[in-house]
Amino acid sequence: MKIAVDAMGGDFAPDAIVEGVVMAAAELPEQVSIVLIGKQAVVQELLQKHGADAAANIELVNADDVIDMSEHPTKALSQKPNSSIGVGFKLLKEGQVQAFCSAGNTGAMHVGALFSIKSIEGILRPCIAGFVPQITGGHAVMLDIGANADCKPEMLAQFGQVGSIYAQYTFGIEKPRVALMNIGSEEQKGSLVAQAAHQLLKDNRKINFIGNMEGGDFFAGIADVIVTDGFTGNTMFKLGESFYKIASQRNISDTFLDKTNYESVGGSPILGVNGNVIIAHGISSPLAIKNMISLAIRQVESGAYTKIAQALS
Amino acid sequence: MKIAVDAMGGDFAPDAIVEGVVMAAAELPEQVSIVLIGKQAVVQELLQKHGADAAANIELVNADDVIDMSEHPTKALSQKPNSSIGVGFKLLKEGQVQAFCSAGNTGAMHVGALFSIKSIEGILRPCIAGFVPQITGGHAVMLDIGANADCKPEMLAQFGQVGSIYAQYTFGIEKPRVALMNIGSEEQKGSLVAQAAHQLLKDNRKINFIGNMEGGDFFAGIADVIVTDGFTGNTMFKLGESFYKIASQRNISDTFLDKTNYESVGGSPILGVNGNVIIAHGISSPLAIKNMISLAIRQVESGAYTKIAQALS
Repeated sequence: MKIAVDAMGGDFAPDAIVEGVVMAAAELPEQVSIVLIGKQAVVQELLQKHGADAAANIELVNADDVIDMSEHPTKALSQKPNSSIGVGFKLLKEGQVQAFCSAGNTGAMHVGALFSIKSIEGILRPCIAGFVPQITGGHAVMLDIGANADCKPEMLAQFGQVGSIYAQYTFGIEKPRVALMNIGSEEQKGSLVAQAAHQLLKDNRKINFIGNMEGGDFFAGIADVIVTDGFTGNTMFKLGESFYKIASQRNISDTFLDKTNYESVGGSPILGVNGNVIIAHGISSPLAIKNMISLAIRQVESGAYTKIAQALS
Repeated sequence: MKIAVDAMGGDFAPDAIVEGVVMAAAELPEQVSIVLIGKQAVVQELLQKHGADAAANIELVNADDVIDMSEHPTKALSQKPNSSIGVGFKLLKEGQVQAFCSAGNTGAMHVGALFSIKSIEGILRPCIAGFVPQITGGHAVMLDIGANADCKPEMLAQFGQVGSIYAQYTFGIEKPRVALMNIGSEEQKGSLVAQAAHQLLKDNRKINFIGNMEGGDFFAGIADVIVTDGFTGNTMFKLGESFYKIASQRNISDTFLDKTNYESVGGSPILGVNGNVIIAHGISSPLAIKNMISLAIRQVESGAYTKIAQALS
């Protein structure tokens, strides 16, 4: 199994990325290697700096260009086919790697996935899934956390099904509990979109829909899959992550609050596309990159995206 | 100044409400008294139980009916004019009290406000404001936190102006920093509604609009007024409150986290109506009720709602 990592994407790239890759490489299962994509000379030097083993399970692929965080995704991708993101999607599309991870321009990662490996047939809109630590242990999958700021009810209903399959195969949960984020527990509560989505989710016999949940239940362990639009999901997810930041500022150390640190999972998959694409925070640290690679391996092993495709075909 | 309190509204009413009122009464400024509305015999007995002074600054007004938490707001209000909520709005409309507070049926409080004291002329939709503790000290006002699940850009823009006036007069902030909750800092980010609202807020010279903020900035102290729709606002506000609950479960004690406890402010004003209406959590404890009464006094003294009316006339 080969996991491609964009060496050039992220606020602290390439240094933090390469360091994280070296950390991950030290613990990789035997059959897994990392394909590091970026400016060869720069990356080579950093690999040496961080003490990567010469015979290590890290392969280098050159990419001369970089797509900046602020560039327009579609424009940048067509103008820079030799960017690290462009090359990563080329390798993924050709099946030379089984997953592609980047802490770079999120929009370019999303557009790149749509243009290269494309949406799964039947998927209305791919989305980004976030992992929300639960006080009862483990994580819930929240989707969408930012790809689709405006959602139709049908999209939300499909997120529920996609998230359910993902949780089943990646987390090994038999009948994932799917909940709709809303502003009240009664089914007639919420925005027009949420009300309509509730009915669609309720009518879907393929999922274990448990009804609405509220903001106070975010960490409560009542659901395995949290369905919401990309606007609500993004703002809530970032608020949830800020718990760790505040705890740190206040010198509070706690095993649960530590899990609200974005570093602890390190990445968010794009779901609904024909392959494994994982995006990380722009601010990603080496530890976050290391954990993102672990997630990528787990996701490749789960075969979740093929299961999603089968369910929709 | 007279502050009316619904003795019958809330999950632990009337006991918790009366206890909170007795706590508040012990510390009231001389010119303030509380008008407690509910079933006279029951409330009388509870006042004795909680050791209220016979000559105290608490006045009793009888209301034979109660609107349950689950009742349909409009139906309940028209069928039960002698409910504690019905009587409260009657007193408020007649000017016999300067504020009305309840931990009862939120919908009935909202509808009651619209039907009795009515919206301020020029207000598109009244909203509910929540107080978000800031790590730098004090609170930000977030609006809407639940009255309007679906919002148009013009409504969000007006929330910005209303919130700014409220923060100025109730918190004494000269030029409140108004921010729009969004999923990115750039002005073209977000849902269609958020993008359009951004432009309207930017064009409003009467407010100090500082641009978009993200979910991670919720507690960060970068804004005094947080503008958002009632769906996003409600889910985020409840998630923010859960910080305290989680901290308690984990035996973490911290002066900032304690402020994320709903009890610390105790109530949320309905803004954009011709009077002071404050609603509290259904689960309100005596301490929450006491603090809600403090907020009501502060709000009456600030004259915020008349300032909002003046700004819109």
